[in-house]
Amino acid sequence: MPRLNKAARDLVESGALAHLVTMNADGTPQVAIVWMGVDGDELVSGHLMATQQKLRNVRRDPHVVISFESDKANPIGMRDYLVVRGTARITEGGAPELLHRLAQTHVGPGTKFPPMPDPPPGFVMRVAIDRISGSGEWEAKD
Amino acid sequence: MPRLNKAARDLVESGALAHLVTMNADGTPQVAIVWMGVDGDELVSGHLMATQQKLRNVRRDPHVVISFESDKANPIGMRDYLVVRGTARITEGGAPELLHRLAQTHVGPGTKFPPMPDPPPGFVMRVAIDRISGSGEWEAKD
Repeated sequence: MPRLNKAARDLVESGALAHLVTMNADGTPQVAIVWMGVDGDELVSGHLMATQQKLRNVRRDPHVVISFESDKANPIGMRDYLVVRGTARITEGGAPELLHRLAQTHVGPGTKFPPMPDPPPGFVMRVAIDRISGSGEWEAKD
Repeated sequence: MPRLNKAARDLVESGALAHLVTMNADGTPQVAIVWMGVDGDELVSGHLMATQQKLRNVRRDPHVVISFESDKANPIGMRDYLVVRGTARITEGGAPELLHRLAQTHVGPGTKFPPMPDPPPGFVMRVAIDRISGSGEWEAKD
């Protein structure tokens, strides 16, 4: 399994938004922008509602593609970006804790998230990495 | 055909990067990040090389999905974003002129682009809009 190097992990954890592509039942792609973090060698996102289209899509077809913009650019001014192709699975629980952790970078330090009392345990999407591409040096070489 | 409202057109023309999803021959999605602009009611991107995977994909299957991040956020801190589902066609020529125009916002005013003498005329991808979604108010109501 390819592994993200430090630059890629730093990008994901920096608060860069994840453009998550999942496949609809009719074979067309669906795109949603979500917060993702790194957990071990996987990418993870938290979801409070089981009914989200992206979760239904992943349960039927676990293949996903995720893209992130970098703040860095190449010498001619085109921005670097990371594309991760992966296989997702959905696990139950843990969404509020993960969302709270990600909100500290995506919204700001000290943010209480989700902004509700007693959020449901929800679901965590875990993406095992199948391929790393994009523009930039993102793959661990060892 | 749905039309982008002023906020959506301003976002695209602001230098927001386009995450462009095209479909590979095997039915999997391909993601590339490109510069896009608005031309009439369509989205346009410029490409110097005919061999790009995204152009080959569009010639075989014209359905594309494009997502853009906004700098604005909703009241709980989640960033707005625009998703455009469309039908693309490729026209010959005009890529250097379009890329030069887009470089003025993506790289900076006064940028010479493409950074080469005598660039090839290339290709322009024109995306007719089939559906507008995402998080935010992006569709023209009239």
